[in-house]
Amino acid sequence: MGSEGGVTKFGLLLCQTPPVPSKKGVAEAKTDALEAAKKLVGEGIAAHPGAKMVVLPEMFACPYGTKFFEPFCEPVPDAQAAEPNTDQSPSVKVLVDIAKSHGVWLVGGSVSERDSAGKIYNTCLVFNPQGHIVAKHRKVHLFDIDIPGKMTFKESETLSAGGQVTTFESPFGTIGVGICYDVRFAELALSMRQRGAQVLIYPGAFNTTTGPAHWRILCQGRALDTQCYVAVCSPARSEDAGDYPAWGHSLVVDPWGEVKVELDEKPGFAFVDVDLDYLKDVRTRVPISMQKRPELYELK
Amino acid sequence: MGSEGGVTKFGLLLCQTPPVPSKKGVAEAKTDALEAAKKLVGEGIAAHPGAKMVVLPEMFACPYGTKFFEPFCEPVPDAQAAEPNTDQSPSVKVLVDIAKSHGVWLVGGSVSERDSAGKIYNTCLVFNPQGHIVAKHRKVHLFDIDIPGKMTFKESETLSAGGQVTTFESPFGTIGVGICYDVRFAELALSMRQRGAQVLIYPGAFNTTTGPAHWRILCQGRALDTQCYVAVCSPARSEDAGDYPAWGHSLVVDPWGEVKVELDEKPGFAFVDVDLDYLKDVRTRVPISMQKRPELYELK
Repeated sequence: MGSEGGVTKFGLLLCQTPPVPSKKGVAEAKTDALEAAKKLVGEGIAAHPGAKMVVLPEMFACPYGTKFFEPFCEPVPDAQAAEPNTDQSPSVKVLVDIAKSHGVWLVGGSVSERDSAGKIYNTCLVFNPQGHIVAKHRKVHLFDIDIPGKMTFKESETLSAGGQVTTFESPFGTIGVGICYDVRFAELALSMRQRGAQVLIYPGAFNTTTGPAHWRILCQGRALDTQCYVAVCSPARSEDAGDYPAWGHSLVVDPWGEVKVELDEKPGFAFVDVDLDYLKDVRTRVPISMQKRPELYELK
Repeated sequence: MGSEGGVTKFGLLLCQTPPVPSKKGVAEAKTDALEAAKKLVGEGIAAHPGAKMVVLPEMFACPYGTKFFEPFCEPVPDAQAAEPNTDQSPSVKVLVDIAKSHGVWLVGGSVSERDSAGKIYNTCLVFNPQGHIVAKHRKVHLFDIDIPGKMTFKESETLSAGGQVTTFESPFGTIGVGICYDVRFAELALSMRQRGAQVLIYPGAFNTTTGPAHWRILCQGRALDTQCYVAVCSPARSEDAGDYPAWGHSLVVDPWGEVKVELDEKPGFAFVDVDLDYLKDVRTRVPISMQKRPELYELK
């Protein structure tokens, strides 16, 4: 499935957007961030016209902090075979616009989603080039960590967790989507691989404590375990130390575990030609997916 | 379990033994290799008297190659609460001797085991300081890979695969054991973690193609996924290009994913103080083991 008889190479563009201003009012901050994202995507595609799939970061239009998720939240449509109604959803409106105007597949980072019951989720929407929503991933593993004196964060104070593994079909094969902390869970990546994923995409925002220690290694680990391309897309780091210090360093790893591109902490974009023939070679040469012993594993 | 109320630190010593001469006769080559291993352990313990657990490499007394596994094989006793009979098992005899004479726990690399039906396995025996066998791991994932022009190997030509996940209890907590290619399978490491493992030990022998690309990253990945100490112990590289070019680079990674020690390709030993309080801290700070969503995972 996936690349069989279809496209075997495609351009993947990660856009590391500027930090969202946390000192402005909600409406203004969101509008600024959405404009900045739109502009960066335009520049990225101008520089890399071969881009067929574009990725934005986690919470690219909401400051990353538990106190911001509620004020910045908006309703988010479900996957649907028509252009979504975005009257109440400024972030989704811009995402539709980006996908349609450039004719690209768009893994739209994540937005703070309010559902009809008032629950809030960290949600990634995926759009096809017609601006239709083809997948919706709500972050499954909430980011609750406590490293005294360095990084304490508790998403679960305000967010609810998603309840689904997310993959979608594209002309470029099967793509899996997770969000940030989701990348720490081998089981989720292996589940996406089990569904046939060839590329795993995680909008994310590690910080300056866990970023240098784990961000790249986790991506390489996921790539080796699944023999997928793995892409992680972060916002750029804020110069305001009061904000969440995002690690930046958006990067792409190939199925052999090699880092193909890695940004620094500043806004920018990263482009990689995803090569599904190479992926197939790796899977043939080291055929771990055929060599598993599921009858022996003792997983929860 | 494990360290509760017990020892919270212990010395772990990896012995990267010299390559086994492949041009000599079986008996002589094996005797030489066993003597070399015994000598290296003695030197290692003399240099690091705090060593409480010692690790030897995969096939430390059998040249690594499918044509050698049968001529070098020997019967191997099962786990038992008494000193094993080693009349027919020269490798096991030396392992018992090492454990008893130094009063250490010994993860005895691996030996080519012939069972009563004539099947051959790549088998790791673990000894307590009394020289009793406390665990026996038969390599579960056989090393069959084909990287044209670089590395083709098919263990399954001569070896049978084991059928069990292996962990054992020690005064230093629960220890998991795999062999080499087993390290590529996240599911096995997660299964050992599920049983309470705090340290994962893999005697192994990656080669000069997969070694530089994957050896360290896989260990770091396993360490982050399980928040265990992960130790991999390889034979040194042979200078004879006709032999299997082992990567060497025995190393230990801590539960935060940091490489604590890594050797080069030459014979030698590596010592690490395993700190189970630190392990506990890591697991408390980033509590992924409590945050899993097993109801969502789709694993084979």
